Amino acid sequence: MDFSSNINPLGLMEGLEEYIIKNLYKLSFYPDIKYRKLKKNVAEYLNINENEVIVGNGAVEIINNIILMFNRVVVFVPCFSEYILRASVFKKPVVRIPLDEEFKVNPLLLEANLKRGDLLILGNPNNPTGFRIKKQQLIKIVEMVEDKEAFLLLDEAFYEFCEDDYDSISLFYDSKNVCIIRAATKFFALPGIRLGYAFASKDFVKNYSIYELPWSVNAVAEIASDYIFKNKDYIIKSKNYVKKQREMMYKKLNEIYNIKVFRTDCNFFLLKLLKYDEEYVFERLLEKNLLIRKCSDFEGLDKSYLRVAVKKEKENIELIEGLKSVLN
Amino acid sequence: MDFSSNINPLGLMEGLEEYIIKNLYKLSFYPDIKYRKLKKNVAEYLNINENEVIVGNGAVEIINNIILMFNRVVVFVPCFSEYILRASVFKKPVVRIPLDEEFKVNPLLLEANLKRGDLLILGNPNNPTGFRIKKQQLIKIVEMVEDKEAFLLLDEAFYEFCEDDYDSISLFYDSKNVCIIRAATKFFALPGIRLGYAFASKDFVKNYSIYELPWSVNAVAEIASDYIFKNKDYIIKSKNYVKKQREMMYKKLNEIYNIKVFRTDCNFFLLKLLKYDEEYVFERLLEKNLLIRKCSDFEGLDKSYLRVAVKKEKENIELIEGLKSVLN
Repeated sequence: MDFSSNINPLGLMEGLEEYIIKNLYKLSFYPDIKYRKLKKNVAEYLNINENEVIVGNGAVEIINNIILMFNRVVVFVPCFSEYILRASVFKKPVVRIPLDEEFKVNPLLLEANLKRGDLLILGNPNNPTGFRIKKQQLIKIVEMVEDKEAFLLLDEAFYEFCEDDYDSISLFYDSKNVCIIRAATKFFALPGIRLGYAFASKDFVKNYSIYELPWSVNAVAEIASDYIFKNKDYIIKSKNYVKKQREMMYKKLNEIYNIKVFRTDCNFFLLKLLKYDEEYVFERLLEKNLLIRKCSDFEGLDKSYLRVAVKKEKENIELIEGLKSVLN
Repeated sequence: MDFSSNINPLGLMEGLEEYIIKNLYKLSFYPDIKYRKLKKNVAEYLNINENEVIVGNGAVEIINNIILMFNRVVVFVPCFSEYILRASVFKKPVVRIPLDEEFKVNPLLLEANLKRGDLLILGNPNNPTGFRIKKQQLIKIVEMVEDKEAFLLLDEAFYEFCEDDYDSISLFYDSKNVCIIRAATKFFALPGIRLGYAFASKDFVKNYSIYELPWSVNAVAEIASDYIFKNKDYIIKSKNYVKKQREMMYKKLNEIYNIKVFRTDCNFFLLKLLKYDEEYVFERLLEKNLLIRKCSDFEGLDKSYLRVAVKKEKENIELIEGLKSVLN
């Protein structure tokens, strides 16, 4: 049982395989180099215009290309490792600001570090912490980014798992200094299909296109986009299921000794071990057929952290029982 | 009828769709981040070791990442436009050497321009000219590259369409200064699947991995690699079919007035118009439902060039009749 990757526990959407199969002949054609149909599908789903859409071979390709467009990258650690890795590949300096003890963004530290022309990347919710930035704080951050003539890349790969308290795209629709990335990977349980997409102003999208590789989104991802965004039942059912499991797990995880449980806004939990280290717990759980994510390779974390996904009820209970028997 | 893209006219391999359908559930899993199975399949097909294999989201992604590894790029023009475009994206200087009047490489010009640490990129066969470098000349070029401590990227996306006179991989297997790219796109008629792969020394492959994006090859490309390389019948049948059509077309094209036909080693022809320009011929052929590739966007060519693919016999004859009625 794989609790290390954070995929929608309801799995592939019903009818999607059949829809792909019907269109599989498209493998022998080049994808539309302008991705008109794909962009139209994304635009309808995100309620934006087609010329405000970026598509990519997974969210990570879009992140990669946007890093290439800026001279310096600013991140809060811990964060998704690729922000720092890709900046290093392009030999761009990276400013790392620590999140506070509760893994929240400290706006004063941001104010002190962010400079004109910087690219600020924020996971929202952040991986591996699971925290979503509160609406009012995010509004203030965007104001700061605009004042300083910097640019904000919001990585919202886990967006649909969150509560509907705000939609960053409608909130920042008029900003020229924000790009918001989402993906089919996590919520639509399609990590193998490689489909990421983003909203940005049409001027930014035009500028981005210079950095894009041709034909980077494959035909199956194009096909799937005709189907997945229209299935509102799956979307609502998944949101509700994950919410219920998240609440159940938060309660049960808090009953386990020797760990600190961080509150999460999405479909995974960061846990701090107060006794033992990641290796010990990892190995004991593996013996029980439970795979979890060690976190010491995240900058800013050490060997006392674990990340676990929210999966199906039966599996979640097995994980909790497993953790109990190792830690209690 | 699309003569602008150079795909195997026999189309999707028999049985491939069924094989993909059986394995489509893999879309809900991340591809193996190390691509062990995929690399094993490629290694067997190319008769090399798994640690000498690079895989990518189409050949173009591998070209892109390799350009990133070097400080300066050297190309002969005309060539596949992405060599120059990607170097520009990374702000790398590009040295453009003209091919001679018959679109052959001039080794003296290469000798004069190639410097230590340069990345030389050669299409072999070259797009849009269709020429494959002769074995003895290629051996001399590789010696020159090694002497100068430069690096050669051979783009062999059209390799399987050529005669079996030499295999550059076995020829340069021991060189540390060569990477040879091939792809499923053209020969296996799978442009929608995005699967490129390459051979290089294991040290180069290790160094390359620093530049790679994670999960860049999708699950369907991984699945297809289990199937396509083993079907020797399709491979032989396709080679023979294209050879026969290429020879027929060369003969027939030469009977048309007002064009110069360049000899090709693969599955497309470059034509020089001696009367009219690309726009005129393009429009007249489009009226006959025939889509060809205008070539003035290739550096080193002008509005007097066209590129046409080798397709199925019936279609090829229609193209020739169409060209005749426009040009004769």
